[in-house]
Formats: sequence, C-alpha cells, structure tokens
Amino acid sequence: MTSVVLDAARELLRTEGFVELLPVILAPVTDPLRHTADRAVIEAYGQRWHLTRSMIFHKQAAVTVLEKIFSFSPNVRLEPAEWGQSGRHLFEFVQLDLEVREADRNDVLALGERLLVHIVERVRGFCAQELTLLGRKLGELHAPFPRIPYREAEARYSAGFEDHVSRRAQGPVWIVDFPVGVREFYDREDPSRPGVLLDMDLVYPAGYGEALSGGEREHEPHRILDRIERQGLDPTAYGSLLAAARAGLPSSAGFGIGIERLVRYLGGLPHVREVRLFPRVPGEPAAL
Amino acid sequence: MTSVVLDAARELLRTEGFVELLPVILAPVTDPLRHTADRAVIEAYGQRWHLTRSMIFHKQAAVTVLEKIFSFSPNVRLEPAEWGQSGRHLFEFVQLDLEVREADRNDVLALGERLLVHIVERVRGFCAQELTLLGRKLGELHAPFPRIPYREAEARYSAGFEDHVSRRAQGPVWIVDFPVGVREFYDREDPSRPGVLLDMDLVYPAGYGEALSGGEREHEPHRILDRIERQGLDPTAYGSLLAAARAGLPSSAGFGIGIERLVRYLGGLPHVREVRLFPRVPGEPAAL
Repeated sequence: MTSVVLDAARELLRTEGFVELLPVILAPVTDPLRHTADRAVIEAYGQRWHLTRSMIFHKQAAVTVLEKIFSFSPNVRLEPAEWGQSGRHLFEFVQLDLEVREADRNDVLALGERLLVHIVERVRGFCAQELTLLGRKLGELHAPFPRIPYREAEARYSAGFEDHVSRRAQGPVWIVDFPVGVREFYDREDPSRPGVLLDMDLVYPAGYGEALSGGEREHEPHRILDRIERQGLDPTAYGSLLAAARAGLPSSAGFGIGIERLVRYLGGLPHVREVRLFPRVPGEPAAL
Repeated sequence: MTSVVLDAARELLRTEGFVELLPVILAPVTDPLRHTADRAVIEAYGQRWHLTRSMIFHKQAAVTVLEKIFSFSPNVRLEPAEWGQSGRHLFEFVQLDLEVREADRNDVLALGERLLVHIVERVRGFCAQELTLLGRKLGELHAPFPRIPYREAEARYSAGFEDHVSRRAQGPVWIVDFPVGVREFYDREDPSRPGVLLDMDLVYPAGYGEALSGGEREHEPHRILDRIERQGLDPTAYGSLLAAARAGLPSSAGFGIGIERLVRYLGGLPHVREVRLFPRVPGEPAAL
C-alpha cells in the first residue's frame, strides 16, 4: 500500500507541475520544533550537521529557483521514549514535504484536499484486496473538508483537543489559525490579526490524529528575526536563514504530510510501526 | 532532469513488479565499506545508530518477504576532504538501491542495462531542451554493454584502472569478477572459482567513472562468517546480520546506483555538486 501511496502522490503533483527534489538529510540548520533539544547531530569537516527534522528552510530557499517543489524527506526526531506507545510516533519517518512560491494558505489547503482525495481513490482502486484482508472499509473522501479555528476547537474541547477532534470526526478536519507561541516561528503571522498564524493542521478521523501541518511562511528578514526573538530562540543559530532572507526569499506556502501516518490511517492499522519493515519506535531497540 | 530520472527509474521498476520501500537512514548496523571508520553515528535510546552507508543488509532481509524491492536511499559517507575535488563525491547522496530474491548476477546485470537504456531514452525525450542548453549530446544506449573481468582490466591498465576504462570507453562498460579482498564481505564468492566474486561494477564512458555496484550476495550464515573473518572484521559487530542469516535469508542479487552521478553523466556536468541545490561536498562548509 505504501508504494501505491507514493505513486499516487507523485502522479498528482507531477500533473500539477511540481518538481521532485532529492531530500536533504544533513544540514547546518533544521526545524526547531518548539524548542525540543536536538541530539541527532554529527560532526564532520569542522562543522555540526543536524539530521533533518523537516526540510522547511530548504523548501523556502528552493522556491527561489523552482516554483513548485516536493521531496520525500526522511526526518529524524528523537521523541521521548514514552511516545513509542502512542501509535503515531516513529523517530525516523518519511514526510512528503512540499512548497509553492507565492501561494497562500487557501491554495495549499485546496492542494492538500486534492492530494488526499486522489490518494484515497487510488488506494481504493489498487489495494482493494489488501483493504479487505485488513478488514478496512475506506470510504471516498469529499472536499472541501470542514475548517475549525484553533480558538474555537480549544474552547469546545479544552487541552489535547486535536485528539478529541480526531476521535469525533467523520472525515478529515482542518484546524486553522493557530496562535503565535504554540507553533514554530516560520508560520506566518496574519498582518491583519496579530497573534494569529496563517497556518493549518489536518486531522484524520476516527482517532488517527494529525495528518499534516503547514501554512504560509515568514519570509521577510525583519519578520523572521522578530518571530525568532519572541519564541525566545537564539538568532545566531538561524544566521544562514536570515542571510538567505536578506538575499531574498519569496513568499510561499506549503505543508508536510507523514507517509507512515497516512498509510496507517488508510489501512486502519493500530500502530505506525506496521507500515515499516524496520520501524524506529522511540525507546525500542532494533536488531537490524 | 533529476525528477525525470526518478520517474523513469520508478516507471521501469514498477512495470517489472518491484515494490518501493521507504528508506532506512538510521540502523544498528550498516555497510562496512572496506574498513573506513564510521564517524556518522548518533546515540539514542541507549543504542548507537549508524547513518546508512547503503541499505545492503536491509535489502537482503526485505527480500525474505517481498520478491523485488527498491528504495531511493539517502546515504552518508564521510569521505576524505580531498575527495571533494574528484567531481564524483558528495558525502550525502541518494542511491537507488534494489534487490531481487533468487536472482543471479546475469539477471541484475540485464536489469541494470534495461534501466539505463530506459532512463537515457526518457531523458533524451523529456529533457531535450535542457540537454541542448547544457551543450550535451546524449546518444541512445544499446545493450548488452561489454564486460571486462577485473583481472584482465587490471593487467591492461594497472592501478586505478576504473578511471582508465571510463576515459577510453565509448559507452557503459561492466567490470566483473572482482577478487576477494578488494570488495565487501557480502559480495558472493563463486563456489566454482574460490577467490573470485560474483559481482560487478558499471563504469560510465568519457571519464564519468563508477555508475553502479552490485552482485550476488553471501546469504548462508557460515559463508558470511567466513568472509567477515577473512576481511579481518569483528563478527560481533555483525551479530544481527548473522542472526538474520541463521533464521534464513534467501539467495539474492541486486545493485545500487548513485542518482547524482547518473544525472552528472546524463547532463555532462563537471561535478556532482551541480545536481543538488544543497550539495554536501567533502571538506566544504555549507550555510543551509
């Protein structure tokens, strides 16, 4: 099923004019991911290289030369060992990471819907036997998916509300307008609504949880610097990003969607580990 | 051009019944690569994880459950800084790594020819404008490619002969039958010709150098152990491979072909760095 998902995703993206980039797995700077300490680092040639946590900054730089890009990007995130039981966490996973120059949130939101609708159609068509074996009834998806602003979802469900939304939903649901502070500095703040971000998450139904994360990006150097400082991060750690922004980053929007979580949802599997032959589960040793 | 190459490779492999696996980038054990010390290692969850140097052992294990597999596998090999000027080395690159259960060398050699012929055809068709811009005349390829046994090439060209073969060749050339000792322990020794391996390299013409490496595999536990010991390696470092072999690994053959080197050859580029937006060249610092 995984290879059908990969092919279906590429098929749609190629039709829409996207160019596939080879992934970056070592970089001087990577996604800060809300302050979690990064222990996945190696030293080589007199420099520290982070294992990629997402290709966010490389995507922003890539759309200066190519309008629409995607990559199947292996990410390493050394999550707490307890998260190994969540069913949703691998410390090595693959993210379909894409970005579109001069797009806004509505553009990539609609792209996300087309992408999921297409993948579900292909999986229903090509993996009918596998779905039957798994006892999985996978219905067609219909766009547009409902959108709930973060503040509304929070008021309705209180803390951990993505899980509540996911458990009650009949189909995928967008959560939009995250507040500054709960998200990374690169999500763009709405100029007309200070404190509110032009970003989104997609949540799978039936408790499968978060599907994708994305939005518009901060791309102007003074805005990036402001956001880095308001997050309490060290701007010198993001010097090369700021230099790229001063040299000129275009406005852009995009998202990243985890492949193993997508296949878990499509197949109705209890744990993402079942998607991989050699799963990397937080806290679990591996032989091979 | 890179995305055309990726699509063309997948197109042929899917037609021939191959299943795409997600890549493994962290593993307790990875390709020894002729004794070079591995400094690309991280610690997590009480275990050491090597950044993948090739998916060789994972491919051998994967064909126990799937007959034909491939993966676009990011590899990290911290080569000496001087190699940065070779034109052929990146310390992070992507390898199309494939394996076929119960195949022999002739099977994968012919597959390699079909794959290259198909990719060249697609690039000539879809990248005609780009080839013209690059001033690159890329002719059709015709299989079979010539095969030269290692001992014969060595006698004719002496040391560093792959470069000589590559510079003089009019088209891709196979070098076959490497001797034990110049290759890794997992290349299968010919039972009827002790000391000779059932393996091969493909060399590009016009000095573009090595294209792919592959062959049949040692899969029986006593043979693997014998080869590890003859290479002077520590068998305890390969305990999980030996355990997998004792549990039963099928015979198989396969190869890995570097994508950046392939695109460099197709485009006639002076250095593999030009294939990547964020090249990782040995000895060179990077900003992003």
